[in-house]
Amino acid sequence: MEKLFYLSDLFGVAVFAITGALMAGRKSMDLFGVLVIAIITALGGGTLRDVILGNHPVSWIRDDTYILVASLAAVGTVLWVRLTRPINETGLLLADAFGLAVFTVYGTEVALQHNLQPGTAVIMGVITGVGGGVLRDIICNEVPLIFQKEIYAIACIAGSLVFLALRELALPDWLVSAAAMLVVLLIRLAAIHWRLSLPRFHLLDRD
Amino acid sequence: MEKLFYLSDLFGVAVFAITGALMAGRKSMDLFGVLVIAIITALGGGTLRDVILGNHPVSWIRDDTYILVASLAAVGTVLWVRLTRPINETGLLLADAFGLAVFTVYGTEVALQHNLQPGTAVIMGVITGVGGGVLRDIICNEVPLIFQKEIYAIACIAGSLVFLALRELALPDWLVSAAAMLVVLLIRLAAIHWRLSLPRFHLLDRD
Amino acid sequence: MEKLFYLSDLFGVAVFAITGALMAGRKSMDLFGVLVIAIITALGGGTLRDVILGNHPVSWIRDDTYILVASLAAVGTVLWVRLTRPINETGLLLADAFGLAVFTVYGTEVALQHNLQPGTAVIMGVITGVGGGVLRDIICNEVPLIFQKEIYAIACIAGSLVFLALRELALPDWLVSAAAMLVVLLIRLAAIHWRLSLPRFHLLDRD
Repeated sequence: MEKLFYLSDLFGVAVFAITGALMAGRKSMDLFGVLVIAIITALGGGTLRDVILGNHPVSWIRDDTYILVASLAAVGTVLWVRLTRPINETGLLLADAFGLAVFTVYGTEVALQHNLQPGTAVIMGVITGVGGGVLRDIICNEVPLIFQKEIYAIACIAGSLVFLALRELALPDWLVSAAAMLVVLLIRLAAIHWRLSLPRFHLLDRD
Repeated sequence: MEKLFYLSDLFGVAVFAITGALMAGRKSMDLFGVLVIAIITALGGGTLRDVILGNHPVSWIRDDTYILVASLAAVGTVLWVRLTRPINETGLLLADAFGLAVFTVYGTEVALQHNLQPGTAVIMGVITGVGGGVLRDIICNEVPLIFQKEIYAIACIAGSLVFLALRELALPDWLVSAAAMLVVLLIRLAAIHWRLSLPRFHLLDRD
Repeated sequence: MEKLFYLSDLFGVAVFAITGALMAGRKSMDLFGVLVIAIITALGGGTLRDVILGNHPVSWIRDDTYILVASLAAVGTVLWVRLTRPINETGLLLADAFGLAVFTVYGTEVALQHNLQPGTAVIMGVITGVGGGVLRDIICNEVPLIFQKEIYAIACIAGSLVFLALRELALPDWLVSAAAMLVVLLIRLAAIHWRLSLPRFHLLDRD
């Protein structure tokens, strides 16, 4: 079971690295830039969480596999785009939703291991889930997508809350994690399918 | 007395959260984006200081009140703007100056508790005071205002230095803190009133 | 010998601070902004490395000299540009290459002292070498140059790998460091001279 979660985690890393590599391509970065943006997108959220928590050493320092998987995903993306033009956007969105689910639940879990209060644990889940994408957008000089696009972070918050609630019941750990991930996944898929968005807050620029 | 400083600190959090929410509104972010930018503006400076110092757990992890106050301020800002268009810019500037004063003195104090050298303590005061606003501007894809606007950081530096100087005298703690805050506040108000700016360094772009 | 490395380190700080001050000038920042960008460019890479490693206190907190040197370099740059217009771009590029070499090797060394795996040590070398420049570009609202320009980070990676390889042999420490720095320096100089670049990854923007 633990093995399965580890593999899911690595899958999330790979998927996020792909979104990073694609963004780097849109900015015409060189191959090193592609690699760095991919790695930051994949591992930035968890690193941010661990640095804020003072949780050392961070995951990718403990285990080289993370960097390796992110790098391979980046190189694979470049080759894939070079050889076969079209990217399966729908497939990528689905994979991204799955990665988000895994990262969110994992981040909430780490926070609870540090005996954080429930509110802070949810925040750590959100940071883990969306932090990498936010860093990617900042470095690529974009206003972060997740603050403007269809419902994204709300999915994290909901999944994290479900995780906290189910943990109070006498359920097996794997079931709690799986159910919380499912919640993130379903909300994301619904948001993508029906293009659900949060209301926006418009203010005229008065400078 | 300690209670008063805690309340001042929370007031600073609320004020900075409002400036964050307003900036998010100028970028037409969704409600989640507004919340995140408000929280980062309010708590980013202190978090940056604590992470650089290795001072764990950071304030908002220790005490849920900080996140709560920042969130309420953000929601309140959105409702306020929706219901009654005009924002009292002058009032906001005054409140911001007060928040800056509190954060700067508090940051310098934390640094001294870590036995930092005076020069570094001043830097920590500045990071605590202006860090949140800088993070807000970076995420919102703007060149940070405080590097271009009227005197802002200079007020922090002056207040922090006054705090260090007065601590050498045999004054009660609350008086030292209050005097240093007053210095920040007065310099900021003078800068706003007479539109004082530091000289700029212009270089032509030769790329 | 150790003294020599310390002086090299300070030289690297000064050089990176100059590049930061020049970038701030291109953004018409005020004098405080120039100072902050210079300090972040000079010390940001090492700080990022130390925060990710949980290596406290970070160098410039331990030793005030770093901040002092960066500040003096920033002030000197402004005066220099005011008094004698032209900047010797070639001289600056050479100095920057030297700073990069010192920082990269130093970062790799710190990582090994923390018993990191070789792959992660190389990453820490790269973060130390290029982190400050990346932070400078992010704050100044630019897509980081090193992800687009001629070979830069590759020089770090190569130098870091050479450092790791030579350490396995029974060579004196100073020789290992010097050789690795020379590798970074030579690759950078070759890249500048022949304008070598990594291939870019172009993707059309489809938003």
